[in-house]
Amino acid sequence: MEPMSENVFNFSAGPAGLPRDVLKKAQSELLDWNDLGTSVMEISHRSKPFIQVAEEAEQDLRDLLNIPSNYKVLFCQGGARAQFSAVPLNLLGGKRKATYIDAGYWAQSAVEEAQKYCTPIVHQAKTEIDGKTAVQPVSEWVIDPESAYVHFCPNETIDGIEINELPQTDLPIIADMSSTILSREIDVSQYGVIYAGAQKNIGPAGICIAIVRDDLLELASDVLPTFLNYKVLAEKESMYNTPPTFAWYLSGLVFKWLKELGGVQAIERINREKAAILYDYIDASPFYKNQVHSDNRSLMNVPFQLAKPELDEKFLELADERGLRALKGHRAVGGMRASIYNAMPLEGVQALVDFMKEFEQQYA
Amino acid sequence: MEPMSENVFNFSAGPAGLPRDVLKKAQSELLDWNDLGTSVMEISHRSKPFIQVAEEAEQDLRDLLNIPSNYKVLFCQGGARAQFSAVPLNLLGGKRKATYIDAGYWAQSAVEEAQKYCTPIVHQAKTEIDGKTAVQPVSEWVIDPESAYVHFCPNETIDGIEINELPQTDLPIIADMSSTILSREIDVSQYGVIYAGAQKNIGPAGICIAIVRDDLLELASDVLPTFLNYKVLAEKESMYNTPPTFAWYLSGLVFKWLKELGGVQAIERINREKAAILYDYIDASPFYKNQVHSDNRSLMNVPFQLAKPELDEKFLELADERGLRALKGHRAVGGMRASIYNAMPLEGVQALVDFMKEFEQQYA
Repeated sequence: MEPMSENVFNFSAGPAGLPRDVLKKAQSELLDWNDLGTSVMEISHRSKPFIQVAEEAEQDLRDLLNIPSNYKVLFCQGGARAQFSAVPLNLLGGKRKATYIDAGYWAQSAVEEAQKYCTPIVHQAKTEIDGKTAVQPVSEWVIDPESAYVHFCPNETIDGIEINELPQTDLPIIADMSSTILSREIDVSQYGVIYAGAQKNIGPAGICIAIVRDDLLELASDVLPTFLNYKVLAEKESMYNTPPTFAWYLSGLVFKWLKELGGVQAIERINREKAAILYDYIDASPFYKNQVHSDNRSLMNVPFQLAKPELDEKFLELADERGLRALKGHRAVGGMRASIYNAMPLEGVQALVDFMKEFEQQYA
Repeated sequence: MEPMSENVFNFSAGPAGLPRDVLKKAQSELLDWNDLGTSVMEISHRSKPFIQVAEEAEQDLRDLLNIPSNYKVLFCQGGARAQFSAVPLNLLGGKRKATYIDAGYWAQSAVEEAQKYCTPIVHQAKTEIDGKTAVQPVSEWVIDPESAYVHFCPNETIDGIEINELPQTDLPIIADMSSTILSREIDVSQYGVIYAGAQKNIGPAGICIAIVRDDLLELASDVLPTFLNYKVLAEKESMYNTPPTFAWYLSGLVFKWLKELGGVQAIERINREKAAILYDYIDASPFYKNQVHSDNRSLMNVPFQLAKPELDEKFLELADERGLRALKGHRAVGGMRASIYNAMPLEGVQALVDFMKEFEQQYA
């Protein structure tokens, strides 16, 4: 993997860094794509060349995630927050309750929106184990049997929490995988709907993928805006309205980049290596700490605190000078956060650890 | 204005051609924007550099359209079709009716979606005058006084119809200006809400502008998805959810390009000149015809038919060889359509007319 740029590594939580090779290709053909003399963003979404882009992107994603044929792949607008409305409006099917597993900020945000359309039965799964933030084992999760579905968010970007188990239920499982998708292997057939905003592991902000099991397409509410209707989007191949064509094209390039790299299995190996380097160093250091239990540490978002918070600004300033960008933690938790999505090369994590060591030696 | 590319002119109805200078600038800084060592699409929407992009884009649009201070400018997702739901869900405020002026395909599509949320009172304004398609004068439009608002679409891209008058009413006037915005001067203060998908005169597909009078922010329905809520978007400066940052940035570049060109007044003069060259030639030729009455001819979309429809394919093939792209008419009306949005230079229209003359001489 090529470095993101000369000496720059971007740890942004989202919109996140994209593979450098993808951006280079996009740059090289931005004025003249496919020998048309125009940009890919200047052609009709219904033109043959764009339809080929769209179909290849879908097929590549199907290959990467091994998506069964009874699942539709939808390219939506509005991001994951639009899905917070779209999920209940598409799936309640007259039921009045849905179970929401709460392990952090994004799960809670989904609950807040769902309250408009149903009574969310919230199971608080975040807990403490040995003084560390953790998630209860699934065997302790309470699922309301009258629920239309069970919703959860397997990776909480702000808290740096990851859930590695699936709810034990026969109800459709709905997962907000915005910051999980394509980072590790999953079994799509276990889910009812998987959705993911693009701006972490897929492409630029402004496009959102929904993978929907086809028996769930018939449950839409009367007040669901049509452009969010899974069935309509499936029938119209995600072209009910003009799709964000450039974002779709870029996502397709990211999928091809990932396939060339060896697919999800290969990137998962790299991601585990990246995360291990960072967590191992943090755990070994008296100067840095991460508050999440080792069973639930996120592969993608690594929050960490300095022993002397008064040095936070200094840390960020020196890191930035070194080309280590966007390390400031979310305002809700403070400290630092290194988001190490698929596009972050191993060298970026190594450069961060090297810097952290130097900083510790100088300021601890 | 620079030609779109070496010998290529793109007449796409949308996603439409963008100003060449804008694409060149985007290309030059795609890998390293603002000396950050990353692309503009790889940084947080909440970072200072991006907030500056966002604020400048808004201010430039305010300058271009002379938007009064009691109007909010929102950068939304989902395109105009999302606004077909967002308008009734934001504006009905408990009323059960809204008047929709119907003069073509897009007005009808807005009615279809509004039926989910209210009883649209449809006034059919499309008519025939002297055997040509036309729109009734506004004095004949029937507006239901119990309506929450009056909706219309001043430019119908498929039919090539433009409406140059405003409904005579004290009710809020809502306009789908997707293919009108920035093409000619308008008086924003006459409207309740103006909305416009970007992919004609603003930027790439995937972003949609809504300009909302601030007394209309308090009327939202309980079932309105929050990411479409005008009040929330206004309060959160269009960052309730992660916005499509690259599309926002590109839109901002288009606004700057237009300001440098002399603003809306200047582009309107060019647009009128472009349209006149094309319509005058069509009217003078026995081989081509346009079916719209001269009072209602679109400045932006010029549909025309060949006297021998069996030559349509030949026309398109030879035009394409000449670098005149995307001239095929919409499947609903057939024939040809030349969309001559702001980014189309005068030379493009001249090149089209030259080609049409040659084709006529050879095949008429």
